[in-house]
Amino acid sequence: MISSKPVRGTRDILPEEAKIRDRLEQQILAVYRAHGFSRIETPVMENLELLLGSDGGENLKMLFTVLKRGEKLNLNPDASVLDLCDMGLRFDLTLPLSRFYSNNQEVLETPFKAIQIGNVFRAERPQKGRFRAFKQCDIDIIGDPTVSAEIELIDTTAKALLAIGFSGFTIKVNHRQLLSEVIIKAGFAADQVGSVCISLDKMDKIGAAGVTGELLEKGHEQQKVNQLMACVTGINLDNLEKWVEDAASIGDLTQVISTVKTLAKEQFDVVFDFSLIRGMGYYTGLIFEVSYGLYGYSIAGGGRYDNMIGKYNKVSVPAVGFSIGFERIISILMEEQQDARQIDPAIILFYDAQINNMGAVIGVADCWRNEGYRVNLVAMKKKFGKQIAAWDNGQYEGFLVFGRDEEIKKF
Amino acid sequence: MISSKPVRGTRDILPEEAKIRDRLEQQILAVYRAHGFSRIETPVMENLELLLGSDGGENLKMLFTVLKRGEKLNLNPDASVLDLCDMGLRFDLTLPLSRFYSNNQEVLETPFKAIQIGNVFRAERPQKGRFRAFKQCDIDIIGDPTVSAEIELIDTTAKALLAIGFSGFTIKVNHRQLLSEVIIKAGFAADQVGSVCISLDKMDKIGAAGVTGELLEKGHEQQKVNQLMACVTGINLDNLEKWVEDAASIGDLTQVISTVKTLAKEQFDVVFDFSLIRGMGYYTGLIFEVSYGLYGYSIAGGGRYDNMIGKYNKVSVPAVGFSIGFERIISILMEEQQDARQIDPAIILFYDAQINNMGAVIGVADCWRNEGYRVNLVAMKKKFGKQIAAWDNGQYEGFLVFGRDEEIKKF
Repeated sequence: MISSKPVRGTRDILPEEAKIRDRLEQQILAVYRAHGFSRIETPVMENLELLLGSDGGENLKMLFTVLKRGEKLNLNPDASVLDLCDMGLRFDLTLPLSRFYSNNQEVLETPFKAIQIGNVFRAERPQKGRFRAFKQCDIDIIGDPTVSAEIELIDTTAKALLAIGFSGFTIKVNHRQLLSEVIIKAGFAADQVGSVCISLDKMDKIGAAGVTGELLEKGHEQQKVNQLMACVTGINLDNLEKWVEDAASIGDLTQVISTVKTLAKEQFDVVFDFSLIRGMGYYTGLIFEVSYGLYGYSIAGGGRYDNMIGKYNKVSVPAVGFSIGFERIISILMEEQQDARQIDPAIILFYDAQINNMGAVIGVADCWRNEGYRVNLVAMKKKFGKQIAAWDNGQYEGFLVFGRDEEIKKF
Repeated sequence: MISSKPVRGTRDILPEEAKIRDRLEQQILAVYRAHGFSRIETPVMENLELLLGSDGGENLKMLFTVLKRGEKLNLNPDASVLDLCDMGLRFDLTLPLSRFYSNNQEVLETPFKAIQIGNVFRAERPQKGRFRAFKQCDIDIIGDPTVSAEIELIDTTAKALLAIGFSGFTIKVNHRQLLSEVIIKAGFAADQVGSVCISLDKMDKIGAAGVTGELLEKGHEQQKVNQLMACVTGINLDNLEKWVEDAASIGDLTQVISTVKTLAKEQFDVVFDFSLIRGMGYYTGLIFEVSYGLYGYSIAGGGRYDNMIGKYNKVSVPAVGFSIGFERIISILMEEQQDARQIDPAIILFYDAQINNMGAVIGVADCWRNEGYRVNLVAMKKKFGKQIAAWDNGQYEGFLVFGRDEEIKKF
């Protein structure tokens, strides 16, 4: 007998969760669309060269690759993944969007505001709440170099989260240029910025002392590390000019935070967080992330990536994106909100399997459907009492027996 | 510069089509749900052994397989696909459903009525209207051995097609057992049934004479071929007993056709078609297919597959399914119905990028959104007249300028 388990790190989605997922996706989509964004779709497979040529950072180590077809494979012990495979599964929706934009630019609006809702794939080590296939809900604005784009994205994402029942979340904002400026001013080399950021990213897990220790362990001089950490722990919105000089980036950062604060109407919070890093190598400007309650992970994240589209396009095109982590949202909702499991008005119409008149049974069912009910047809068993008890599973308001009942009976 | 084309045989879906796809999917889902079916989801990747061990027929030759990870590959010239790969992309939704049912049976309703809407993958030779990744909308009933299941599936699928604007389609019905009976009675061996069916399947393309020629070419005796073709061309609902003996199968076939005819109320047709074969090796009983207009392909198909779930389960479980080919539906709708491209009530709110008050702009936009409009925010350019002309693309009802207009202006 063959195993009936889904592949490692993935899972089956049962009816109760699927219903909630469908509702949430439609609610998020409606908010995105109301804000002028348009849905697009790209294939889950992309050319391997495209994926490997991206700034995907750690995600490139977690690629699922698809074996070449239709040609004799070069099977020798030195064969590389590019000898064996020509496609891979997408690890995010940003890279496919950049390719899409370059491929279809001439028929798209300018600026182009895209919605993408779809699965992405990463060969993460399986653990609770982490899956190898998971859904993301992204919005992106391509072609707007101003912070209006960041403000629109944050506003729209916040409204989508409010629409699905989240409030009291915190939007953290930071700026990659200011981070780089501080790191370099502390004496680190330009090519050390990435490595220093990886350590800074652990601030919320290991604290400032932990980060300091790690940077020293990496062999950086005490004085550089001290100067950097003094800034990271001391910088705030009121003393920015004391630590950084890049006036344009400071202006962008403060404008976004103050505007979003006005829009928030105290339903959520927006803060400057200089330890916010975000892993993706492709971000170039403002970056943002949404945290919620005591959950140790973000529920949404994004930022500006002005250089990515230039890889496929003759000219560079400015772009910003914001992605909701759908699986995290769902797992919080399923955990916190029992009322997420709304009961549809649904009933069962039992019928006698012997009487051979499905046409009439369906006719009666359709009358109830026209009244707005979901109607499930079920053949009666001999032990009808026991059968009714088994269907009293919380999913149905009641039942009828064909040819006998004219009113819905409660379980 | 890296190519911006999607991978071979796949395509990007642009905003206008994505909008139609979303609407159709929701309409189909609503009909399915009203009829008591529940949505589930399975991963697009399945274990390769599961896929290869299935009765997938021709589809197994079109598998996309995923390279193993985390272990040293056995790269020698004799390595098989199972040496290199441990997963594959699903080629249909029926096999994953069978695995799902076995994996989750104890928490599912009996009979279980499943909805699956998702992409499947086949490495077909790319050609017009054929894609390597495409969406299917399936409903299945698991655990009902009677034709009530077939009748419910055909009724529900027909109503879904009517709901999205199709009518006048023809549902063809046949029975695998009766086909086998006729082929064997004509003198063919049991292990030749599959090969004979492959020839019969071409009836609508090459006609009875063509099929006869092909069977003779395959080396079958003239007398057997003549007897078979006399039946295939002569059999109809009124003379079934003259050609076949299996009373149970005859009863099932006639009951399904007569019941569906009553339900059809002349909005669509249902016919017996003894040349209907359907390729999948796993069908065991009634099979059905929907044809529409002069299109040379079916828009939906399905049948009973009672033996599949037994592969993963201790006991065999009866099952029937019906699948709508979403891509075909969409391509017909985009071709035939201009009104499929409905215009949402959408407007553009232009603003002066210099005045630095996105909060106020968003406030005005939200007022219009509360009135039911999609509102797209766009920064004004110097040549505003030219800019307005570019946005007059048929997607918007009109526009406003922030701080100037209080009424929507037509383009």
